[in-house]
Amino acid sequence: MSEYQYPANDILFSLSSVAQMQRLIPYLDDAIDKDLLEAILGEAGKLAEHVIAPINGSGDKEGSRVESGEVYEAKGFKEAFKAYSEGGWIGLSGDPQYGGQGLPSYIATAVNEGVQAANLAFSLCPLLSLGAIEAISLHASDELKNQYLPKMLAGEWAGTMNLTESAAGSDLAAIASKAIPDGDVFRIKGQKIFITWGDHQMSDNIIHLVLARLPNAPEGVKGISLFIVPKFILDEKGEPSQRNDVQVVSVEHKMGIHASPTCVMSFGDQEGAVGYLVGQENEGIKAMFTMMNNARQGVGLQGLAISERAYQQALSYAKERKQGMKADRSGRAVIIEHPDVLRMLMTMKSQIDAMRSLVYVAAVENDLSHFATGEQKQESIERTALYTPIVKGWITEQAQEVTSLAIQVHGGMGFIEETGIAQHARDARILPIYEGTNGIQAIDLIGRKLHSDKGKAMTSLLAEIEAELTEWEQSKISDHTAPVKAILEQAKLATQYCLSSMQVNPVLGTGLAYSYMMLMGYLIGAWLQLRALHASKQDENNLDDAQQRSWSQSVSFYCDHVLPRAVAHFQSIERGQSSIDDLDESSFNR
Amino acid sequence: MSEYQYPANDILFSLSSVAQMQRLIPYLDDAIDKDLLEAILGEAGKLAEHVIAPINGSGDKEGSRVESGEVYEAKGFKEAFKAYSEGGWIGLSGDPQYGGQGLPSYIATAVNEGVQAANLAFSLCPLLSLGAIEAISLHASDELKNQYLPKMLAGEWAGTMNLTESAAGSDLAAIASKAIPDGDVFRIKGQKIFITWGDHQMSDNIIHLVLARLPNAPEGVKGISLFIVPKFILDEKGEPSQRNDVQVVSVEHKMGIHASPTCVMSFGDQEGAVGYLVGQENEGIKAMFTMMNNARQGVGLQGLAISERAYQQALSYAKERKQGMKADRSGRAVIIEHPDVLRMLMTMKSQIDAMRSLVYVAAVENDLSHFATGEQKQESIERTALYTPIVKGWITEQAQEVTSLAIQVHGGMGFIEETGIAQHARDARILPIYEGTNGIQAIDLIGRKLHSDKGKAMTSLLAEIEAELTEWEQSKISDHTAPVKAILEQAKLATQYCLSSMQVNPVLGTGLAYSYMMLMGYLIGAWLQLRALHASKQDENNLDDAQQRSWSQSVSFYCDHVLPRAVAHFQSIERGQSSIDDLDESSFNR
Repeated sequence: MSEYQYPANDILFSLSSVAQMQRLIPYLDDAIDKDLLEAILGEAGKLAEHVIAPINGSGDKEGSRVESGEVYEAKGFKEAFKAYSEGGWIGLSGDPQYGGQGLPSYIATAVNEGVQAANLAFSLCPLLSLGAIEAISLHASDELKNQYLPKMLAGEWAGTMNLTESAAGSDLAAIASKAIPDGDVFRIKGQKIFITWGDHQMSDNIIHLVLARLPNAPEGVKGISLFIVPKFILDEKGEPSQRNDVQVVSVEHKMGIHASPTCVMSFGDQEGAVGYLVGQENEGIKAMFTMMNNARQGVGLQGLAISERAYQQALSYAKERKQGMKADRSGRAVIIEHPDVLRMLMTMKSQIDAMRSLVYVAAVENDLSHFATGEQKQESIERTALYTPIVKGWITEQAQEVTSLAIQVHGGMGFIEETGIAQHARDARILPIYEGTNGIQAIDLIGRKLHSDKGKAMTSLLAEIEAELTEWEQSKISDHTAPVKAILEQAKLATQYCLSSMQVNPVLGTGLAYSYMMLMGYLIGAWLQLRALHASKQDENNLDDAQQRSWSQSVSFYCDHVLPRAVAHFQSIERGQSSIDDLDESSFNR
Repeated sequence: MSEYQYPANDILFSLSSVAQMQRLIPYLDDAIDKDLLEAILGEAGKLAEHVIAPINGSGDKEGSRVESGEVYEAKGFKEAFKAYSEGGWIGLSGDPQYGGQGLPSYIATAVNEGVQAANLAFSLCPLLSLGAIEAISLHASDELKNQYLPKMLAGEWAGTMNLTESAAGSDLAAIASKAIPDGDVFRIKGQKIFITWGDHQMSDNIIHLVLARLPNAPEGVKGISLFIVPKFILDEKGEPSQRNDVQVVSVEHKMGIHASPTCVMSFGDQEGAVGYLVGQENEGIKAMFTMMNNARQGVGLQGLAISERAYQQALSYAKERKQGMKADRSGRAVIIEHPDVLRMLMTMKSQIDAMRSLVYVAAVENDLSHFATGEQKQESIERTALYTPIVKGWITEQAQEVTSLAIQVHGGMGFIEETGIAQHARDARILPIYEGTNGIQAIDLIGRKLHSDKGKAMTSLLAEIEAELTEWEQSKISDHTAPVKAILEQAKLATQYCLSSMQVNPVLGTGLAYSYMMLMGYLIGAWLQLRALHASKQDENNLDDAQQRSWSQSVSFYCDHVLPRAVAHFQSIERGQSSIDDLDESSFNR
């Protein structure tokens, strides 16, 4: 099994030349210079490569186990979590008032690419902690913040998110867990499922954030509140003390991410778990929504990360495995010499390049939405909202293809678990599902993002794409600007079709949504590939000839062999409205 | 978990109305009437549903184990194999001289769809036996046939195929196993890997067919011979007696088909395994090639079968799972009411319909290539050779998408192994790999099939498609004939591009091959979907209104939402030649 290599150079190029992180400089107290960023990523890379990657395969085999309501994680994970916490990585973007380093979150994104690629199952524990930290930071009282944030930002305590119940998955309106007032606190009762890292032995306490209903709360999503429920209730000194009334019932057997314990959690089997209200009563869902851009972009990042890991392993195998003859019959070939293997590898690589550009462009925009002021802030809020479902939906779909191709490059060895490549595909299969299925991302894009502002944010994005394409067309950087422009015209038309569907027949609109999301993903990928190509030729980026050639080949391949899929999605929207609208349950009775 | 239902009606419709099995009547001694076929399929369906399907999930969990060089299969498999054998299913297409029933193989194909859908891991044991039976039937001496075929056709003895070695996967030229003459027999020595059902306790003997080299044989594929190596050497009465020198070293841990033991086999650790030459010396590979159409079409069938199984389970879940509100807000919806779920289910269904049509069209053509005479025989030989890589390659690619969508319909439950849907995707992942990777199928299509006869067989197929499309266009059976014709024109152009590449620059040609195979698959799928639509409207087929509507919706959906992908593959071939041709190992150095 090949070792993972953190692609620091590609990430730095993406951040500086494609995502243009320097756009943030006017809004930051301390500018992040490139040297500092390189130093940070260098350290993150070492941690990912040497500490977290080596326990990925063993964690997959071992999984986790439950004993007396406690979860015991796979070997080596506790030590890795300690190294991760002590390195200060959890607090990277945290509020300095509580011990965080206050850095823009694109840096955390770059660090997390390495951690997630190294070990997706492991990475979910700090990721969920960050979600809990964000919820507390944005919505909790100062008292709660003082009690919980410093330990959480230091990684001494972990956090979890408890939303799903067996009848309430995509549909949180159906949440039934109860919160009963009891003096200053609440008593939480209910069962939650699919709770990632719901319990473990890696931290001194676990801070569960739980959605539940107060007595007499309104029905549906407007009657749900958010609570902190610590595994160990804090004593007067703020130290973990009495065990709270929350237990792990069981851990799921899953297709992948075996080392990440997915728990069924029972709150309040005895007297009721002690919980503390976060934010206002009945505004729990609103609080969740404020965290959604980060969480969903985080899953898109996972798609990029695991694709890169799988690609590296396939590339390494293709350079070593001998099979068949060289084209000139002069001897045995390594399989990377076969054109169909080159095709598979470049399908992976060119998509990864496009995925990475999109991830960092969206991350920088997300930072602008927090740090910028005035008009820029508002624009970045709208643009971030627009990018988010595409980052989550399109990238995680691409990750299915890339991780599957990585198996295919291995031939029969790909199907053998010891090879380690199947794990990436099994792990990646959760990505289109959690944090809102990709169907829900598509509906979010076409509904809350496109329809709600009558296409304003999308029109602004399409105009930016057009302006850049026109500029590159004039400077003749590539033969591929024309085909990308042709897809842009289709995207404009598709936007009109979808907007009018959402007005006239929103049921049809949601049926077209997936194709629209995919079309936009492929277009944005092509636009950013061309931006990368343009940047690769600029002197200030100091790329050597081989690197420039590699970018040029990736971009050409993407435009010729990946982008044409956008046409299929466009035709689906243009011609296929009635064949979607006609469907109902009886269509399947034959 | 939903129960599998054998889709006898869809299969009968496909065989009679799309594949036109009646084309075989002039060449058969006994015509198969529809009532007989229905009766056979009815029994096959019961076996699949009630005997073989129930041990699919348990077999996945249990797998198999090795003890002292013997493999012990999962619980219930021995009994199921007994029921299967005693039902006479193995001998269905076998030579009546040796106890077979001599039926055309399209009937076995229809039976196997059920067995494979019920339990892919189980189905591989009789499938490999059939491969061994075919090799012996076509190439062995009468003496060997008399010794082995009756017991094998009765299912008392199983068979295996031993081709792959660790350095010889796709590239059989590298086979190193030895066969040393020893009196009338040969002593076989060598290690084989990836041997499906290489050992088990389900039959009284196991007949291994083994590729090995004689001393002083020519290098490469022209020096490989084929041998029978029985697990138990036969005594003078032809009964299994002395244990042969062949051992199972280990069983692989695989991503899927856990209940199918994939063995590392060691031949000749002691005195050398006793083997008997099948056919002529050094003609082992040629013997393998005569079986290739059946074996490869068989894997395409597996792709159809497992897709149908996964689809049925997803459909059943979508009708039961409540989540979200009805479009009119009148209450909670079952998820099949959501347009994006309908989209996923019809993407699955319409592809399955197209896959099934292609499977049975190719199966009937294959039978014609054996049973027909004169010009028809030659045409069918050529057409079968042309269909085979598309059946194997295109269908198994579609099976990846369909089984993955089946997970997606289940949301979070799809990732939980107890749900049983992830197993289908894990099992299906082997299909694009074994029996020649899909890359090799594509190269077979563009090389041995297209280039070798200068496009004659393909031109004949495209002309047949065009003639039928023109007829349906005139009879106005569908609005979709025009878009299918447009794709046909692209397929003609792509054929010209590929032919000229293969002449001028075959390295480039093999780089375009995958796109060409996929383009042809989507086109053929559309053609046969229209043929099914046409047939569904004919009075003699007695479809009721609901059934006709279901066909009409499947065909419209396929043409609107699936077929447009052909455009992407065409553009890849038309525009993307230089971006393929430019690639080499250095393209990935950045």
